[in-house]
Amino acid sequence: MTYCVGMRLDRGLLFMSDTRTNAGLDNISTYRKMFSFETPGERAITLLTAGNLATTQSVISMLEERTKAPGDRAPSILESPSMFQVARLVGQTLRDVIADNAQSGARADSSFNASIILGGQIKGTPPRLFMIYPEGNFIEAGDATPYFQIGETKYGRPILVRAYEPSMSFEKAVKLLLVSFDSTIKANLSVGLPLDMQIYETDSYKLGLSRRIGAEDAYFQTISNGWGAALNMAFDSLPDVTL
Amino acid sequence: MTYCVGMRLDRGLLFMSDTRTNAGLDNISTYRKMFSFETPGERAITLLTAGNLATTQSVISMLEERTKAPGDRAPSILESPSMFQVARLVGQTLRDVIADNAQSGARADSSFNASIILGGQIKGTPPRLFMIYPEGNFIEAGDATPYFQIGETKYGRPILVRAYEPSMSFEKAVKLLLVSFDSTIKANLSVGLPLDMQIYETDSYKLGLSRRIGAEDAYFQTISNGWGAALNMAFDSLPDVTL
Repeated sequence: MTYCVGMRLDRGLLFMSDTRTNAGLDNISTYRKMFSFETPGERAITLLTAGNLATTQSVISMLEERTKAPGDRAPSILESPSMFQVARLVGQTLRDVIADNAQSGARADSSFNASIILGGQIKGTPPRLFMIYPEGNFIEAGDATPYFQIGETKYGRPILVRAYEPSMSFEKAVKLLLVSFDSTIKANLSVGLPLDMQIYETDSYKLGLSRRIGAEDAYFQTISNGWGAALNMAFDSLPDVTL
Repeated sequence: MTYCVGMRLDRGLLFMSDTRTNAGLDNISTYRKMFSFETPGERAITLLTAGNLATTQSVISMLEERTKAPGDRAPSILESPSMFQVARLVGQTLRDVIADNAQSGARADSSFNASIILGGQIKGTPPRLFMIYPEGNFIEAGDATPYFQIGETKYGRPILVRAYEPSMSFEKAVKLLLVSFDSTIKANLSVGLPLDMQIYETDSYKLGLSRRIGAEDAYFQTISNGWGAALNMAFDSLPDVTL
């Protein structure tokens, strides 16, 4: 499994992903699921991937035009005139890779599936955040649905629903995502550290702070250990029922 | 879907279930999923059911021996010498009902599936709590796994993991379950009010307090409204990251 979140804030976009991939319980690996593209001063784009690893790696390679010699590459993702056009490009690439695998593969179609969260900003337009489905179609985040989750979404959702505010600082939003990821990691073995984090500040047109957060990260330990106590404090603050 | 929890406490057993059943989004009903049997002074047993409603209702009817005339009924569940034997009886009944439906049915086997949480105490033995699978086999709760969830288990799990203590009072445990159910109800349309609650106090050998909790229940409203604020307070109590 996987857990990735892309979040729209007043200040910009925030992305977080885990790095565990598994094929069965006894075959686990660490792979990056966050990929960024930028032309500083003009655009910055980040993708989060969930699903079949061969599919998502192939999609990223296609987007980077690795079929061409290094000197000939001019990725369309860096040329497309709008984020909507980028979403169409990513969706089409994803659909094509899945169809190609399904055609030659011996297993069920669904096992090649993947989903992608795409966010970024191109000069002249506001930041935009999309969720792209295996069929290549996509939806955009709005004020009522300002974040997308893919992979193992359920354990980490209640805290997002309760604590998310569009006006949050990046510092607070990172804290929120770490709580959400910690709850998920504690409940599902197939979601695991380290985490990747990427910030994009509105109208900066360049990738913001990026960080890899491992088990030894002092702040992550503070959140992971402190959240249990904080939650119990919150729980105790509610009145007991009279039976 | 459904959400049910059976919990082992030092003081006894606590059961909670929702009442929503659905066949598609536009075909919803309210049905009880909690069923109790007792011989006051000798035994008290409670079942929570999740899965195909025709299967679970049939299982309960079989356990109540409704195939016999009212005067002839002597349910085995009230005669079995041990909770282990009761679990075997319930598991066998469940397996037989599923097999019977699957044989005559036109649809996939799995659609007739159901799971059951069974808990109770028979004089001379301690209270016991079981989870029974569609295949009729079962597992028992222990100190390391003191509660079972069936149905939509994920949204409501993080708070159970963090706040459960075997030494909790029933008042506090009911509060914990209401928080867990509220998070689930807010996230999954197929889990809904009212909730059924059943307490069993160790060595009482009779059903304890039973309550139906609807949307108008003042305490449920306190928890549902208060938990958001309490969670935000807990969240704010953790330090923000330094970016």
